[in-house]
Amino acid sequence: MVIHLVFGGAGFIGSNLIRYLLQESGCSVICIDNFSRGSVAFVEDFFSYENFNLLELDISDNARLYSEMEKYQHLFGEQTIVWHLAANSDIPAGVSDIQIDFKDTLTTTVSILRWMKQNDLRNLCFASSSAIYGDHGITELHEDIGGCLPISNYGAMKLASEAAISAASESFLRQAIVFRFPNVVGVPATHGVIYDFLYKILKTPECLNVLGNGTQKKLYLHVADLVDAMIFLQKNKNLSDKMNIFNIGPCDEGISVREIAEIVASLFTPKPNIRFGVEDRGWVGDVPKFRYSTKKLNKLGWKPRLSSAFAINKAAEAIREQILNSK
Amino acid sequence: MVIHLVFGGAGFIGSNLIRYLLQESGCSVICIDNFSRGSVAFVEDFFSYENFNLLELDISDNARLYSEMEKYQHLFGEQTIVWHLAANSDIPAGVSDIQIDFKDTLTTTVSILRWMKQNDLRNLCFASSSAIYGDHGITELHEDIGGCLPISNYGAMKLASEAAISAASESFLRQAIVFRFPNVVGVPATHGVIYDFLYKILKTPECLNVLGNGTQKKLYLHVADLVDAMIFLQKNKNLSDKMNIFNIGPCDEGISVREIAEIVASLFTPKPNIRFGVEDRGWVGDVPKFRYSTKKLNKLGWKPRLSSAFAINKAAEAIREQILNSK
Repeated sequence: MVIHLVFGGAGFIGSNLIRYLLQESGCSVICIDNFSRGSVAFVEDFFSYENFNLLELDISDNARLYSEMEKYQHLFGEQTIVWHLAANSDIPAGVSDIQIDFKDTLTTTVSILRWMKQNDLRNLCFASSSAIYGDHGITELHEDIGGCLPISNYGAMKLASEAAISAASESFLRQAIVFRFPNVVGVPATHGVIYDFLYKILKTPECLNVLGNGTQKKLYLHVADLVDAMIFLQKNKNLSDKMNIFNIGPCDEGISVREIAEIVASLFTPKPNIRFGVEDRGWVGDVPKFRYSTKKLNKLGWKPRLSSAFAINKAAEAIREQILNSK
Repeated sequence: MVIHLVFGGAGFIGSNLIRYLLQESGCSVICIDNFSRGSVAFVEDFFSYENFNLLELDISDNARLYSEMEKYQHLFGEQTIVWHLAANSDIPAGVSDIQIDFKDTLTTTVSILRWMKQNDLRNLCFASSSAIYGDHGITELHEDIGGCLPISNYGAMKLASEAAISAASESFLRQAIVFRFPNVVGVPATHGVIYDFLYKILKTPECLNVLGNGTQKKLYLHVADLVDAMIFLQKNKNLSDKMNIFNIGPCDEGISVREIAEIVASLFTPKPNIRFGVEDRGWVGDVPKFRYSTKKLNKLGWKPRLSSAFAINKAAEAIREQILNSK
């Protein structure tokens, strides 16, 4: 039996991954989360599945991780897959206090690696980020580009996690797969540009004030495509390296904040007025524009189903429903 | 008055840096160390200097760092320079337990950055390492090379520190200078290949057993040259970036472990027999060979005085004296 351990499994991406994994036959899922950003509501659908287990735990606490996981230890073996998706996802919060990303994004990684070594678990899938690259202007970001200088603590602690995993690959891991995510959209949303815009409009329905001048163009992947790519890579038998790094993203040039604001505003009648700022970026740690190469992944045969614009459209409607239903 | 805060100042490189700084007029040095790898003996020469202060402190403990440094706070200003040289320097120890490098190499960095932000200190010089690059075979390692995959936790936590400093440069630092050290030799030695060989010979004078086959070729810089380069960069007015990264090293192809063993063995009469292993590397996390570009630094006008071979020769004699005197 394949056991999937999903750290950070009650978050936005984790809960989508688990929904997918639970459909597979002959597998069991253990979701570990401290519910700091994730929510019980995101995983309560899964309580009816016999092959789903939930554990509330601060993963950065290695001693507690060790003791709480002991009861599952007899299930672990060669086929056990560790998915590490736990992280602080509030980038501006981490910029003002490095301790947040240090604890939730990096210390969790170090704690998981120590625990995996203690338990002889050797397959790791890690959710990294395009934020590790920093600002390279219009240079296309491929996995091996040099001069990665993250400009947010979020990006820094994701890069730091990759470095720790790289060393672990040399020492005890059989295989590590590092996914560098772009911006990901879908439900259940916890943050992000669509979420922010919807909340602003629901608060002041007549107008939508946008941070920055709206020219920031970014790539957005729908969470369904993201999970599909992650599973595609985890099951891929052609990954020969111990440490495998993949950009995951759409195959387009992205969509501007201006267009996103239009899409979100158009969901309301009457449509709110959209007002933009003057800066070319929204906050410290926000990279205004970037070009993202997904050739390495595409060459293996994977393509996303939705473009950035389609992903935004689909997600905007779903997040609107999510917010209205939660009121 | 320029205040130099030297974290990890009682270590091998830190104590050499402080010796240099104390000769300068109009400056004051505060040395902060937990004496885990450093030693009071390395800095006791400086106790007679009025402009030298010593503080015993575990830097990774941010709350204690904050409270213990409070008494110096009135001295700090625009001209204060923070030198962060605190780290675990025992690479094999860190490979077997990531917690060592995580605490002593990375958590110290995060703690210092938090404390600098709290105190509005904005000039940081950081001791990084060629270990951040990982194994690139014979490809020349320049500062902007891509695909940095450290193979030791030491290298991983140095790269992680650089990432955190990069984010801090975007947010509050005025200037960060990151020095990527090669292997550094000289006194007071605490570890390293010469130190190990000398100890082995003193234990069993008839033979010297070498880990690996001795073909590993590495670059060695004498600590006097290293300190010279660090000061050269710190005083340089032409560094325009907020985040400045420099490889520091000799301008040669390095020296093999075989040659080092010969040099060290030749210090003894009768000369011990040298026996080699069969592997091409000594331990997990040891990169067998690498080519190191120092063009970026050389272009600014700095060159070392000693080659790798001269540095090893000079250091071997001095470390032999150091060990014999400590007995």
